[in-house]
Amino acid sequence: MSLELTILGFNSAVPTAYSHPSAQLLNIAERYFLIDCGEGTQVQLRKAKAKFNRINNIFISHLHGDHVFGLVGLISTLQLLGRDTPLNIHGPKGIEEFIMTQLRLTESNCSFKIVFNELSGKESVLVFEDDKVEVFSIPLNHRIYTNGYLFREKSKQRKLNMDAIEQYPEIEICDYQNLKNGRDYVMEDGTIIDNEDLTFEGPRALSYAYCSDTKYKPNIIPIIKGVDLLYHESTFLHEAKDLANYTGHSTAKEAGIIARDAEVGKLILGHFSNRYHDYSLLLNEAKIEFENTVLPKLLGTIKIKP
Amino acid sequence: MSLELTILGFNSAVPTAYSHPSAQLLNIAERYFLIDCGEGTQVQLRKAKAKFNRINNIFISHLHGDHVFGLVGLISTLQLLGRDTPLNIHGPKGIEEFIMTQLRLTESNCSFKIVFNELSGKESVLVFEDDKVEVFSIPLNHRIYTNGYLFREKSKQRKLNMDAIEQYPEIEICDYQNLKNGRDYVMEDGTIIDNEDLTFEGPRALSYAYCSDTKYKPNIIPIIKGVDLLYHESTFLHEAKDLANYTGHSTAKEAGIIARDAEVGKLILGHFSNRYHDYSLLLNEAKIEFENTVLPKLLGTIKIKP
Repeated sequence: MSLELTILGFNSAVPTAYSHPSAQLLNIAERYFLIDCGEGTQVQLRKAKAKFNRINNIFISHLHGDHVFGLVGLISTLQLLGRDTPLNIHGPKGIEEFIMTQLRLTESNCSFKIVFNELSGKESVLVFEDDKVEVFSIPLNHRIYTNGYLFREKSKQRKLNMDAIEQYPEIEICDYQNLKNGRDYVMEDGTIIDNEDLTFEGPRALSYAYCSDTKYKPNIIPIIKGVDLLYHESTFLHEAKDLANYTGHSTAKEAGIIARDAEVGKLILGHFSNRYHDYSLLLNEAKIEFENTVLPKLLGTIKIKP
Repeated sequence: MSLELTILGFNSAVPTAYSHPSAQLLNIAERYFLIDCGEGTQVQLRKAKAKFNRINNIFISHLHGDHVFGLVGLISTLQLLGRDTPLNIHGPKGIEEFIMTQLRLTESNCSFKIVFNELSGKESVLVFEDDKVEVFSIPLNHRIYTNGYLFREKSKQRKLNMDAIEQYPEIEICDYQNLKNGRDYVMEDGTIIDNEDLTFEGPRALSYAYCSDTKYKPNIIPIIKGVDLLYHESTFLHEAKDLANYTGHSTAKEAGIIARDAEVGKLILGHFSNRYHDYSLLLNEAKIEFENTVLPKLLGTIKIKP
């Protein structure tokens, strides 16, 4: 099991022939999550050879066009493809009106149910969970109400230490699940055998944090602490700090500081202003703060293994 | 002066890496009109090297996504480009709510005024005019309320016949505009000289009709009679006539019949279903009815000279 993040677009503001607004496809524990959906995202999904019908949850950070203008077109296409399973859309308050007004006026009779999960709080909350994964909001600080998202595998089961277990003939196969779940074993005579004596640690649960768009906001660090992979916007170089502040964005240096202080595994930059053509300037600035920083590659996939 | 039509997209329904939904840029008498605006149109405009700020009027045929999902993104980009001149959007009733709901929820403070001209009638009406051009609606028959548009240069001024004029020394330069406008000349002694004796016919006024989406609707013929260029949708081959009828579309054969009976100069087909890869089948079918039929070429420009 690994975590795979495919970058569908990483530019800010205006789409062009060569720059695509924010959108990512995350595969975590074989769940396919679409994160943000700027105009043209459905075409980027096709180019990435993504299977549209595997996407059951879409997470929208905020209602700026470069993060959401592709959503209604994607929904329309899912309908034309004959989808019938429900689609869950998580996003800021207003997203239901945003989508449903368009579907009503285009007289679209959606062939599947859309379940909206509107967020409006200022604290991190559990947004989604199933048996394998949980997703939390990361309240950010932008010009408009915005959340990042923390995607986390649930703690994985421990591995059985069969050599140790075989020394206790009274432990039966039906006890194995309890051991994998971390429970100690209680012998018939009342003796307790520590779980750690019967099992090994399981594979590490993986995690990914998406933080865009936001000003430098160090109080997200406790939420994203130790994630394997962090995407943090870096719209500007630090020399444009005033502009970053005015427009509610971060600099590459600030993204690096957040990554360093949150002790993440790897940092990906993104949401670059169209003023920059040589992204290595942004990369180098962030790397001074946090060495394991990479640039996004359009339609490239970053794999994280346990 | 000529009429130039640039095809930004000509496919129906679902955008892909290689097929783009309906959008056209028309230059008629140096007026730049955008006709329909499917998702990704702003990128197509960039690829066509169009000057965004020359576009002051946008004509939307109907509120299906493949004709309108790119409009809010284009407006958003115009705003980021610092536009301050008003933008006129002509389209079906509902288009103002469609756009303004999105601008409100994305908290866009538009830097320019958007003037909506909502159509709801069933008769052809004058939609726009200035000193050079007039635009009329063409009521169509689709699943949802739809209009095509007829773009027509106003009758052009007559050309002065200087050899004839010089025979009348009392005709002065200040009289020339009246002659160009077609007025007869009245001599001081009351004699009337026919305008046709003093001028030649001016260059022919050009016209273009955009008809998409629609079932076969022969009663549009009086409206589009004799246009220089007709775009008529041909979503299907005639063997799929039942499907065309069910979905409110035309076949290539029907597009050809409309062009023939309306005695147009040239027919362009378009709005092809994604089921077709060899468009020559559609072309050949239409050509049986009307020889001067062409296929659209992505980002290609068709020029019509007087």
